[in-house]
Amino acid sequence: MIVTNQLVAPLYADRLARALSPRHASVRTVTLPDGEEHKHWQTLNLIFDGLLESGCDRKTVLYALGGGVVGDMTGFAAACYMRGVPFVQVPTTLLAQVDSSVGGKTAINHSLGKNMIGAFYQPQLVVCDLDTLATLPDREMSAGLAEVIKYGPIADLEFLGWIEDHIDALRARDPQALAHAVRRSCEIKAWVVGQDERETGLRVILNFGHTFGHAIEAGLGYGQWLHGEAVGCGMVMALHLSHRLGLVDAAFVDRCVALIRRAGLPTMGPALGADRYLELMRVDKKAEAGEIRFVVIGPPGQAQLRPAPDALVREVIADCCR
Amino acid sequence: MIVTNQLVAPLYADRLARALSPRHASVRTVTLPDGEEHKHWQTLNLIFDGLLESGCDRKTVLYALGGGVVGDMTGFAAACYMRGVPFVQVPTTLLAQVDSSVGGKTAINHSLGKNMIGAFYQPQLVVCDLDTLATLPDREMSAGLAEVIKYGPIADLEFLGWIEDHIDALRARDPQALAHAVRRSCEIKAWVVGQDERETGLRVILNFGHTFGHAIEAGLGYGQWLHGEAVGCGMVMALHLSHRLGLVDAAFVDRCVALIRRAGLPTMGPALGADRYLELMRVDKKAEAGEIRFVVIGPPGQAQLRPAPDALVREVIADCCR
Repeated sequence: MIVTNQLVAPLYADRLARALSPRHASVRTVTLPDGEEHKHWQTLNLIFDGLLESGCDRKTVLYALGGGVVGDMTGFAAACYMRGVPFVQVPTTLLAQVDSSVGGKTAINHSLGKNMIGAFYQPQLVVCDLDTLATLPDREMSAGLAEVIKYGPIADLEFLGWIEDHIDALRARDPQALAHAVRRSCEIKAWVVGQDERETGLRVILNFGHTFGHAIEAGLGYGQWLHGEAVGCGMVMALHLSHRLGLVDAAFVDRCVALIRRAGLPTMGPALGADRYLELMRVDKKAEAGEIRFVVIGPPGQAQLRPAPDALVREVIADCCR
Repeated sequence: MIVTNQLVAPLYADRLARALSPRHASVRTVTLPDGEEHKHWQTLNLIFDGLLESGCDRKTVLYALGGGVVGDMTGFAAACYMRGVPFVQVPTTLLAQVDSSVGGKTAINHSLGKNMIGAFYQPQLVVCDLDTLATLPDREMSAGLAEVIKYGPIADLEFLGWIEDHIDALRARDPQALAHAVRRSCEIKAWVVGQDERETGLRVILNFGHTFGHAIEAGLGYGQWLHGEAVGCGMVMALHLSHRLGLVDAAFVDRCVALIRRAGLPTMGPALGADRYLELMRVDKKAEAGEIRFVVIGPPGQAQLRPAPDALVREVIADCCR
């Protein structure tokens, strides 16, 4: 069963079906509506409807053809259908290729929080075809670059430097630059997840920028900003917080913010108000007993999880949002 | 978070909350509507609503207080909430104490099939308080006895003999008889699940009576017959099928059917028509490529999974349904 969306289906669904037909007795396609705002139970149920109407059994393989939303929903459907069937990720966006398709995090959103309902469930295989990035809108390329840039400050300053040198080539979709960015991103992610699949420790560093980012997405309503755009801006806020906590100097913050800007990403957050930001971040999965915990940088090239005084967070919001 | 239903809440929710209060910073209760017909996504979402509205985090423990429906839904909610939080089973029905609370199968129903959406997710602990059976309606006691009886033909003929000797004591809720029945049932189930948690082999024998039983439940609409009633009648049909396949003699079938009848369970299925039975059984989770596979007995005390010719299944339906 190929699960895809209305945007990707006309581009690649037939080609994937042809490639799979020698391997399976029958290949069917379920096409979901496109966009983060559809990443909820009703859309997930379209996958279950398709599986049950086609008489799919425990040996059925689900193929997620699309971006992070398709991957997250297909993976969660695979985790739950008959209590678990195999699935394969075929990511067609840069963001999914460098981040969401690797590591087995699957989920849907709840009206009270993003990715609140899901499972850790590993794909059998992740197939990144760089040619599919040719049809990706510029805005989605930038969103994907947010997650590529992320790996620099949290884990690899050499890679951060390489991205600075190649950011224009990446935005212009130079195949060699893309190949290196996707490969190195997957290497770092696999290295982290291999040590801590269930996010009991190290894995949490991959959420750099995501606590502020999720608040932006939830505060504006899912689908207004792309996930990667919110993460880009969230990294700016988390960098400012790291600086206010005395963990990195202003020059490092400026350097990273400049790169995020050159990637075509927003660096100022929406003016939701500090109270609303704090309220939204208190339901973050990393929060414990109502205390928000942030992934901050310090020293550069390493990340850590820690709480921060509300007053400091309010200053960051005042500086970074308008 | 205690998850219970409208029937059980007034009986035991306060008592459990008092018992838990020394162990947790705060104890809350979510009360679901009662009955198999509510075992679907909308009801599951009431648990997520309650968890998110109370700001519950990854350290929150879910306590399932009730029967199999509450246990299956609470376990699945625990498996999915923030990709997994701990949970404890506190079963208050005989069926849940001897079967559904042990082994980590959790699920909700889909309109096209029972337990189609779920997870294998083990509770931290199962607490069987026999005193809670005092408030259980007779019909539910009988339904629970179906799953007790099940362990005899599939695994333990000595236990089958013991049940025959104590069936009246069990129906009269004799505490010593109940204690032995619950203990031995859990032992057999734990022995099976310990060897095959994910049901890739041996565990499937626990589904004896369930293929026909699920068809009865789905065909009549969930909630008409109790699950245990459908399983009781499903065992009668599976025994007849075993006999027609030449695996057990007629005397063994008669012996088991007599015990099922003495337990207060139906031994004749509803007249859904053979076509409808076959259609419903083809979406069973044990089916492969549209071929229904049945758990049959043979020799007595052992079970096996095998397909059966449609013609033979039609004869069984003709014999056992009116």
